[in-house]
Amino acid sequence: MKSYIHGLVCPKCKKHYDHRKVQHLCECGSPLLAEYDLKGAGRAVNSNTIAGRPPNLWRYAELLPVEDEANIVSLGEGFTPLIPLSRTAAQYGFGALYLKDEGLIPTGTFKARGAAVGISRAKELGVKEVAMPTNGNAGAAWSMYAARAGITAFILMPEDAPYITRNECAAVGAQVYLVKGLISDCGKILARSIPARRWYDASTLKEPYRIEGKKTMGYEIVEQLGWQVPDVIAYPTGGGVGIIGIYKALKEMQELGWIGEKLPRMVAVQAAGCAPIVEAYKKKAPVSDFFPNSKTVAFGINVPKALGDFLVLEALYKTGGCAVAVEDREILDALRELAAAEGCFVCPEGAAVFAGLKKLRAENWIKPEETAVLLNTGTGIKYPDILSFDLPYCAIDGEI
Amino acid sequence: MKSYIHGLVCPKCKKHYDHRKVQHLCECGSPLLAEYDLKGAGRAVNSNTIAGRPPNLWRYAELLPVEDEANIVSLGEGFTPLIPLSRTAAQYGFGALYLKDEGLIPTGTFKARGAAVGISRAKELGVKEVAMPTNGNAGAAWSMYAARAGITAFILMPEDAPYITRNECAAVGAQVYLVKGLISDCGKILARSIPARRWYDASTLKEPYRIEGKKTMGYEIVEQLGWQVPDVIAYPTGGGVGIIGIYKALKEMQELGWIGEKLPRMVAVQAAGCAPIVEAYKKKAPVSDFFPNSKTVAFGINVPKALGDFLVLEALYKTGGCAVAVEDREILDALRELAAAEGCFVCPEGAAVFAGLKKLRAENWIKPEETAVLLNTGTGIKYPDILSFDLPYCAIDGEI
Repeated sequence: MKSYIHGLVCPKCKKHYDHRKVQHLCECGSPLLAEYDLKGAGRAVNSNTIAGRPPNLWRYAELLPVEDEANIVSLGEGFTPLIPLSRTAAQYGFGALYLKDEGLIPTGTFKARGAAVGISRAKELGVKEVAMPTNGNAGAAWSMYAARAGITAFILMPEDAPYITRNECAAVGAQVYLVKGLISDCGKILARSIPARRWYDASTLKEPYRIEGKKTMGYEIVEQLGWQVPDVIAYPTGGGVGIIGIYKALKEMQELGWIGEKLPRMVAVQAAGCAPIVEAYKKKAPVSDFFPNSKTVAFGINVPKALGDFLVLEALYKTGGCAVAVEDREILDALRELAAAEGCFVCPEGAAVFAGLKKLRAENWIKPEETAVLLNTGTGIKYPDILSFDLPYCAIDGEI
Repeated sequence: MKSYIHGLVCPKCKKHYDHRKVQHLCECGSPLLAEYDLKGAGRAVNSNTIAGRPPNLWRYAELLPVEDEANIVSLGEGFTPLIPLSRTAAQYGFGALYLKDEGLIPTGTFKARGAAVGISRAKELGVKEVAMPTNGNAGAAWSMYAARAGITAFILMPEDAPYITRNECAAVGAQVYLVKGLISDCGKILARSIPARRWYDASTLKEPYRIEGKKTMGYEIVEQLGWQVPDVIAYPTGGGVGIIGIYKALKEMQELGWIGEKLPRMVAVQAAGCAPIVEAYKKKAPVSDFFPNSKTVAFGINVPKALGDFLVLEALYKTGGCAVAVEDREILDALRELAAAEGCFVCPEGAAVFAGLKKLRAENWIKPEETAVLLNTGTGIKYPDILSFDLPYCAIDGEI
């Protein structure tokens, strides 16, 4: 298996960069995207060859940036289950509804995909130290893979980030610093520190390989549906790397000839308390405005202005998709409903997507015969305090 | 795919039972084991046919008890990664060392395997209500699959059980009762309640199908090693269902002709604070004595007397295995060591196994050229308080 990567390109100003050197943002400030020799890859591999490979994201190695297999840093990530939600589909009148469960992955969230590919590629490029600001889960994932790679991770985290993610970082030996502020404050500290420290900046979209890990969700959904695209893919949207990645994967699969002209309509689901993409979508704007005083129970999508907002919006516009906002109350109700009806204990961000899909179905934006895929980005067990229950006691000498 | 189950048998008194009816313990008090027409199964399926199937435990459907595929209740469980621990193997001089990571499974612990198969089979037998005492993780798993099956779960849990597991049960709609006592007290309440309530008793080994789910770990390890057996499989041993199941799988694979005469040496790892199997093993006794005042940080293996102790000990004796005890301090050190060296954030029970393997290697009970498999039964993220760190702050206007 060899990688068919042949360079990096700026999606904004189209400038090309050498992928064999460490690269971050384009001179114009945009994130860079990896480009592949898709003709060559298409000759080397097809859906049949992939079918026989181990069930992890490295089954798409030709379309990933790691050039020497020896640099792959893996904990068995990817090829997460696509779970049919038959009861719910029948109740709301979807043609079919699937949950892509990113809870079943190292560190319990989809962040592991970006970290696995990002760290593998950083190792390949000779990086010894990476640094990033994080709301928790990305830091945990990058710390974990960095430890496995023998790379030191420096992690800046708001003190309000989920407690368990702090411990994940610290347990694997990352250098963790808490900040009495937001992730944006952490980012500013990092920016001030980098000139002297010369760390590899692994902030969202500031290196080009995290997105390559995330895009494998797109390949997997299509493979797991028998190389068919669904009508709708709905994604909880904060930084937007997942939606950008899935859209990139879909376009690559078109060029590879693995799927036809039809693309799924991409849906960005946001919390009403932090909905910059929804606001931009309403105005058909190409970029988003900073969303002030953002607040939501879905901590992972509390991103008031994403660096890749224009790429997210492009994915929505080009696929005939949309953006939808849901209230925190709807998120918590959706979380309980999905748990009780389907046995799926999702993270609040995944619950937000379910709430969004119900809205779109109610408005008939999703038609009765259509197939939708709900991306659940993490396991509910990382959020022990999201629900609380007043449970009854049974006396030790009693019966029920 | 059809199941080749043809009955249930008592491993103690050899009495046979009809698997098409609800069955619990044998008249003699022993757990029952499922028996298969292995000749028939061997004609229907081989390692090549299995290779092409989806990566979950249902790939071994011929060797599982569910007779009609429509009754399978699945959340994508099984075929968890077998992760090479190369750095650690080199450091301690193992030939090879692998971690079977049961953190990447619904509910984050190996309990999902038993629950998936147990609930599927209960559904097949027409069961509407199940009940069980639990230290947390089993209750969470059975609640989750019960919700998906449309079965009501009644769960009795010590108030000291991990908080997150309470919420998992309650979130999916299980009827949860807290008890100011131990799991044994919960079991007694259940026993008193069952005559009037007529629940299906899903307590450990009191129904014969949980073990069938657990045994798939044995099939997977062998398949993932290219249908070779390792020299040693080490398992954290509380109730012992995992070790009994893996041993059962190995014997089935021998009869199927999928492996040769050599079996891996099975190792039961226990906490020094609760080591009934280790005590019995030292005396070469066929059963264990109740271990008084048991206490350990590894809550999941705090089982002072297991119903299936004789089956665990048989697995050790018949394979030339052993039992080893580790101190809580060694468990916590092992947890941190594995995290930092390999990026694997395991549960305390998995860490206990690593501590045990290091001991056996130091004593040369495991030889330098030998391959060992470490069973990690759950993800570390379910134990947010197991480690604590005093993390530094960085000023909001500072740098690092």
